[in-house]
Order: sequence, then C-alpha cells, then structure tokens
Amino acid sequence: MIRETAGGGRRGALALPHRTVQTPVFMPVGTAGSVKAVPQDVLEALGAEIILGNTYHLYLRPGHEAIARMGGLHRFISWQRAMLTDSGGFQVFSLAKLRKVTDDGVEFRSHLDGSKHFFSPEHSMDVQIALGADIAMAFDECTEYPADRQRAEESLRLTMAWAERSLAHHKANRQKTPWFDEKTGKRQNLFGIVQGGMYADLRKQCAERLVEMDFDGYAIGGLSVGEPRELTLEMIEQVLPMLPKDKPRYVMGVGYPEEIEQYARLGVDMMDCVLPTRAARHALLFTSEGRVNIKNKQYAEDQNPPDPNCQCPVCRRYTRAYLRHLVQAGEPLAATLNSIHNLAYYLGIMQRVRAEMATANASL
Amino acid sequence: MIRETAGGGRRGALALPHRTVQTPVFMPVGTAGSVKAVPQDVLEALGAEIILGNTYHLYLRPGHEAIARMGGLHRFISWQRAMLTDSGGFQVFSLAKLRKVTDDGVEFRSHLDGSKHFFSPEHSMDVQIALGADIAMAFDECTEYPADRQRAEESLRLTMAWAERSLAHHKANRQKTPWFDEKTGKRQNLFGIVQGGMYADLRKQCAERLVEMDFDGYAIGGLSVGEPRELTLEMIEQVLPMLPKDKPRYVMGVGYPEEIEQYARLGVDMMDCVLPTRAARHALLFTSEGRVNIKNKQYAEDQNPPDPNCQCPVCRRYTRAYLRHLVQAGEPLAATLNSIHNLAYYLGIMQRVRAEMATANASL
Repeated sequence: MIRETAGGGRRGALALPHRTVQTPVFMPVGTAGSVKAVPQDVLEALGAEIILGNTYHLYLRPGHEAIARMGGLHRFISWQRAMLTDSGGFQVFSLAKLRKVTDDGVEFRSHLDGSKHFFSPEHSMDVQIALGADIAMAFDECTEYPADRQRAEESLRLTMAWAERSLAHHKANRQKTPWFDEKTGKRQNLFGIVQGGMYADLRKQCAERLVEMDFDGYAIGGLSVGEPRELTLEMIEQVLPMLPKDKPRYVMGVGYPEEIEQYARLGVDMMDCVLPTRAARHALLFTSEGRVNIKNKQYAEDQNPPDPNCQCPVCRRYTRAYLRHLVQAGEPLAATLNSIHNLAYYLGIMQRVRAEMATANASL
Repeated sequence: MIRETAGGGRRGALALPHRTVQTPVFMPVGTAGSVKAVPQDVLEALGAEIILGNTYHLYLRPGHEAIARMGGLHRFISWQRAMLTDSGGFQVFSLAKLRKVTDDGVEFRSHLDGSKHFFSPEHSMDVQIALGADIAMAFDECTEYPADRQRAEESLRLTMAWAERSLAHHKANRQKTPWFDEKTGKRQNLFGIVQGGMYADLRKQCAERLVEMDFDGYAIGGLSVGEPRELTLEMIEQVLPMLPKDKPRYVMGVGYPEEIEQYARLGVDMMDCVLPTRAARHALLFTSEGRVNIKNKQYAEDQNPPDPNCQCPVCRRYTRAYLRHLVQAGEPLAATLNSIHNLAYYLGIMQRVRAEMATANASL
C-alpha cells in the first residue's frame, strides 16, 4: 500500500491490527501510558492515529502483567487506535542505574526505587507481548555517541544477536497478546532496529542482516543521540536504500519540525519524538513563523493566536498573552494547551506532506 | 425570575450581562484566570455557566490594567459565559504578607515578590471594573475564626464602612468596564458581603444595613474558615430570611458536596469552592458512592469507572486503575481528569437539585 513519489518520499497506509495508519506519520510519545498533559479524546481530534508507549516505564509501573490482566495497553489507557512500544533498551541505557550488560541481556536498577531487574531479548518480547501494542520493537543496544569503531562493532554484534533472539521468541509467543485473533490473523508486528553508530558500513551490514531475518518493518535507531544533524541525515540516507520497499521504515526519536519533514520526503514512513510535548512543557512553541518562547515578555499583551496560520483548537481560541500568563502563573493548563498546539503542528506537517505526495502520485 | 419551592429552596435564573445563569448554581474557581488544569471548552461541555476569578491574583499577575487593555477578563481568558470576581480581600488576608489594616484600607506585600501594595474599597472596585466580570464583590474584611465579640464588632464596622464606599465608587465608575453598553443597559453587578463572625446578631445587623444600601445581590462571607459545620449552617439560616427575596444570595467558599446540596435547598442561589479542583489534584474524587482516594492500592486493577453512576467524559472513558496509575506516575493528566470528574460531580448535584425544584414548582 505504499507508493513512491518522485522526490523519494513514500505515501502509504499501514494496516495495523487496531488502525490503518496513513504514512508518513508522526507518532506522539505516551511514555507512561499518557501523552503528557493531553487527554486521549484531544489526541483523536488532532488526528493522531498511532502513539507510543515506553516498555521500560510501563514494565516498572504499573507492570506489564497488571496491564495484561486488564486486557492490554489499548484498553488500560483507553486508546483504540494503533500503538507501538519500544523495546525498553533505550531507557535501560539512559535512565536505569548500575547497568551490567552481558551477551545474555542487561541487569539494571530501577530509576524509581533502585530495585534490581533483568532485561533479555526474550524478556523484552514477553513484556511487549503482554502490553500488546500493534508494533513491538526488537531488543537492541542503542550505541552511544561518540563511540569508536571497536565499541560500535561490539555493540552491533550484540544488537544483531539480540535481534535474532527477539524474532524467534516473538514468533513463538506473539499469539499471547491480549487481543490476538486467530480467525482474522490479526497479530502483533515486530520491527528490527538498525544500529551501527555513525559508521555507514556497519549500518549497512546491520540492515542487510536484519532484512535477511525478515522483520515486519525496520527502524533506524541510535540517531539523535548528540551527533551533528548532517551525520543523522547521512546515516538515514545510507540505510534507506538497503531496506525492502514494501515494508515500513521508522526513524526513532526524531526530531525538529524541519527534520521530520525532510526525512519524510526522503522515504521515512514513521517517526516519533518527545520534543513537541517536552518543549511545550518548557513554554517552547513550534509555529509556522518559527520557534516561539511563549514566556518572553514581548508576548505579555500579544492578542494574536500562538500561530496565526494554525487551525488547532488552541490557536482558534487563545492568545499568546493568555498562554504566556498561564506559564508565568505556573498554571497546569499551560502544559496542556502548549502541548496540544505543538502536537497539532507536528501532525499538521505530516498531513501536508502526505497531501503533497498524494498530489504528486496523482500527476504521475 | 426566582420561584421558591416548598422546602425553602429557590429555583431561578440570573440574567447577567454575559449569560443567563440557572440557579442554584455552583461556580468553579478560576483563581488566576484558569480553572486549574481544565480547558475552557471542557468547562463549557460540563455545563459551567459562571466561573470565578480572584482579584488579588489577577491584580498581581498579569495586572488589571493589562487585562483591561486586552478587553477585559472574559476576552483575556476566552470565556464568554458569566464571571464573578471576589474583592481581593480574602486573599489579602490569607496570602499576602505584612498586612497593615487601617480604616482607609489594607497595605500588604505580595506573596509573589514581596512588593508593596495598597487595597482600599475604591481600589478594589477599580480593579474589578477593569477586570470586568459580570459580578463584582464589595471590599470586605473576612473575620477570622475564632474571633471574640469585640474583634468581630470592630471587623464588622470596617466591612460596613467599606461596603458603603465600595457601592458609591462602583456606582460612579461601573460604566468603565471594558464591555459596558449604555444602549442595552448591560452593566457590572455589585454584591455586598454579610460578615459578623459567628455572632448571629452581628450578622443580622450587617444584613439589614447592606439591604438598606441596596446592592444587586448579597453574599454571606466569612464562613468555612475553620468553624464547625453546625455553626456555618446556623449563620446561613439566620441571615437568609433577612435578605430580599428577589435578589441573588451567594454563600462564599463552600463546600463539600453534601453542603452545597443542603444550602441550595435552604435557599442559597450561588456557591463557589476550590474543593473539587484542589481535592482532584490530591487524588481525591467525589463520587455517588462517597469519597474515593484514587491513589489507594485497592484501585490498582479496578476496571470500573471512577463513579459508576456518573456520565461525565472521564467516567465514560477511563477506569479507576488508569486514574490511579496516572497519579502514581506523576502524570499531569491525572490533575486534568480528576478535576473534570469532580467538577462534573459538583455541577451535576446542582443540575439535579434544580430539576427537583422545577418539579416541585410544577406540582404546586
């Protein structure tokens, strides 16, 4: 269901168990089962078709077994559109304490209470199957930046071995998702993750190996970890041609508004990032006129909408002066309204890009 | 437009400049121009017809002059239904530092930055006229509890003198509200506030004097300040018969769900309280089955709605387990969803009471 356009972008539709998602798509991040400060009905009204959940957070609290007993993540958070869970690997490496990595997996202590836990590829699959998102991710090691070649090779060896184990364990257990339906054949998808640090040849080697393994889709991970943006772009450009055309391509953890548009036009189908919501909580708005730090005094009596070219519910109703006041006064509504606008802006970029691609297709 | 029912309650409609409000009514509190954590469109959907703003907070931040320049409070916060502002007196006495009270007014230091300010009855009127709510309140001294008779008498003397000055200054300047309309005669209302501590005869004396002054409506203030509930009830019961039947009666700062129902049935037309939103931010839900501390472990896997008898958007969509998780995880959505439910519960009580009164009227 994916058609390439002249510029290399891909207009498609991803038929997932809970929703057919129009691509290229931006996926808001719902870390602990909530896209921070934004109610689910608002996300629906904004046109969000797929959101993320973080396996690490949900595993620690409230726990994947509790969520499974309650019918899975969709039901637990009351979100009946599509969802994706990451593997937990990224947070284990960025948030958890006292990690001990072996070939078998990662032992770590919770950032919440210091309790000891162990994640292996098999355990990550079990947790993600219990959560029951539409898409699960293979357990990988997110190579830090910078990493020298030896370190990147060693990390990649682990990621590839873990990808194989993830795939095997997922295949054998994926029927255990709370909503698995033998009759319709609806089942959880598993994506592999291309790593390899900033070494194009390692990235290609990884992509080739993962494609042989035959995942349902492919992600490019380990980007936006501090490297210059040219390097991010180079890695994406090197990897994309290695991936099969008929399967979705997901670049994890990007990015700024101009980045998501650029990558979508390169042929990336899926992206996610905490930036729109995190920036919103720090009073930073993304607008068609550039970034607006709504805390600035210059907006104190500015009665224009946050973005004069935006039709989101916040821009239709409220002024910059009011949003600034909410931030200044420490009102919780500030996070909500700022987040709604930023998400609308991100989702709107993808809507526009998709519409342009559809037009390009029509004129072929 | 007010009809008394057999039990003493009053079913009415209050024609205010921005909205005809059905009474008895509960008014959510929007302290600094936002009912905390709840967007304006949600308040509308819940049926809120009138909300409060706090003069003290808005005077300090963003400032009444800035709000007036932006067209008044309704426009500033994008709320086109009715609003009421308090006089600032209560917060000056409860929040501000280093107060110095004279017959002229109160000198105080801001709780925000320690800056020095002075509130007189005239200044409170100027600020409230600039904010431009539908209803302004006379500047009063909220007598603390307990207060001995001498202290209560002295405080009452001040309140009555200030009421007279408030009324005169308001009458002379009320055409300065940002939305004043000479043609339609739409103008800001001013309510007097009955004080007198817990002394019934002082309360009656105050009510009598205020009624002579002829305000647009009458409030009973200085309740819910720590006194036992029987005393609150006694004061209300003593004062209500003193007030003219054709004018609205407002008991300030109450109360628990059972209280607002009880007072409405006694003939109180208007009430406000931070309790539903403040309790919500501390995970306390008011439900038809009693109070629910949603943080409790017993709700960890409880898939019932927060209140099985409630039709609010939160109870229709989410489970107790999810709300508990949001609180446990420190998610900002917890405050929003809990507040929406509690406000729906409070507004629902008044809807039910109004419907019952209408039926009682019909059967007379």
